[in-house]
Amino acid sequence: MANVAGEMAPHLKHGVVITDTGSTKGSVIKDVSPALPDHAVFIPSHPIAGTEYSGPEAGFATLFQDRYWIVIPNGADDATTETLKAFLSATGAIVETMDCDYHDKVLAITSHLPHLIAYTIVGTAFDLENDLQNDVIRFSASGFRDFTRIASSDPVMWRDVFINNSDAVLEMLQRFNEDLSYLQRAIRWQESDKLESLFTRTRDIRKRIKDAGQLDD
Amino acid sequence: MANVAGEMAPHLKHGVVITDTGSTKGSVIKDVSPALPDHAVFIPSHPIAGTEYSGPEAGFATLFQDRYWIVIPNGADDATTETLKAFLSATGAIVETMDCDYHDKVLAITSHLPHLIAYTIVGTAFDLENDLQNDVIRFSASGFRDFTRIASSDPVMWRDVFINNSDAVLEMLQRFNEDLSYLQRAIRWQESDKLESLFTRTRDIRKRIKDAGQLDD
Repeated sequence: MANVAGEMAPHLKHGVVITDTGSTKGSVIKDVSPALPDHAVFIPSHPIAGTEYSGPEAGFATLFQDRYWIVIPNGADDATTETLKAFLSATGAIVETMDCDYHDKVLAITSHLPHLIAYTIVGTAFDLENDLQNDVIRFSASGFRDFTRIASSDPVMWRDVFINNSDAVLEMLQRFNEDLSYLQRAIRWQESDKLESLFTRTRDIRKRIKDAGQLDD
Repeated sequence: MANVAGEMAPHLKHGVVITDTGSTKGSVIKDVSPALPDHAVFIPSHPIAGTEYSGPEAGFATLFQDRYWIVIPNGADDATTETLKAFLSATGAIVETMDCDYHDKVLAITSHLPHLIAYTIVGTAFDLENDLQNDVIRFSASGFRDFTRIASSDPVMWRDVFINNSDAVLEMLQRFNEDLSYLQRAIRWQESDKLESLFTRTRDIRKRIKDAGQLDD
């Protein structure tokens, strides 16, 4: 990333606006900013869109339609930020501004942690003895299959996401581990009321996602 | 379950075949068998089909089409087992027989553990401070949303699944926890090669599910 920015640097016109589309923003600002000349304006951004496929062939015309595209103003003046926002809006995306650290925290729980967990459970299944592994594949429709879709995402991109957003990911992972231990203990001690109580609460979040219009795609 | 079996018991004809459709089989055999008369044949079964919705209204005509339906012979003679299998095949399902303990182990990893993890992460998000929670909902499309679908499954049914299959679930959970700790450590120590290596392996499982014809539905 720093190399690309460094290579671009000598060719940048005065007042040029540069953005990126990476999944983590703190690391991008740290790596890119020092490599750019003062007369360039770097406004990082992140489109919350995409599938488990990557590369130019994985694109399609409505990829950004009604999806969020987060812009990190990063100290740029309002007029310049608005110019970039108008440009991104032309893709059909809903453009929002956000603080860098806050972005990295929200994405840690909505995207990075779910991917880490999906990679883990698919890996756990991969290490089972042969017969069992074959039957896991045959009976994957019962829940596991959703995880394999997420865990088939680009390995290099996701390696970099975890390395670059490690602080926020580790914080969310710590919370997740505490909550999982609580359920594990409830299962071991047959505390069915604790299980039912949590399983009832989590239904509500699904309803709120639906109410926010983020279910249909 | 034992109560239902007990209430049925006095009304059962000689040689009647009884099955069920529960998600765990060891616990069902333990609870139902003692309540039935000797002249009834209990052959538990489990259709690997369904959605996050429950109840009669959640059914549809092709629910079992090309899905697996597992039958646990439970000591019944071959002819009787074949009669039940033929009956279940008429729904369009692919009927397979399996040992009880093996069934409970396969389902622990393909279904029960994925549900437990989904419930956990959605619960973790639910406990975040208010602003962050709202943004988790808005930006759920980035991976989290798949987990909320699973975590909106019937709380009472899933409470019973974990209580009734606790041994197999706790065993798989132990393996999962070890694997997650390994990745957590790799993130903390920035060991990017370990991350990339696992993320590359997990892609293969997705491919094998596709090859097994279990992706399209």
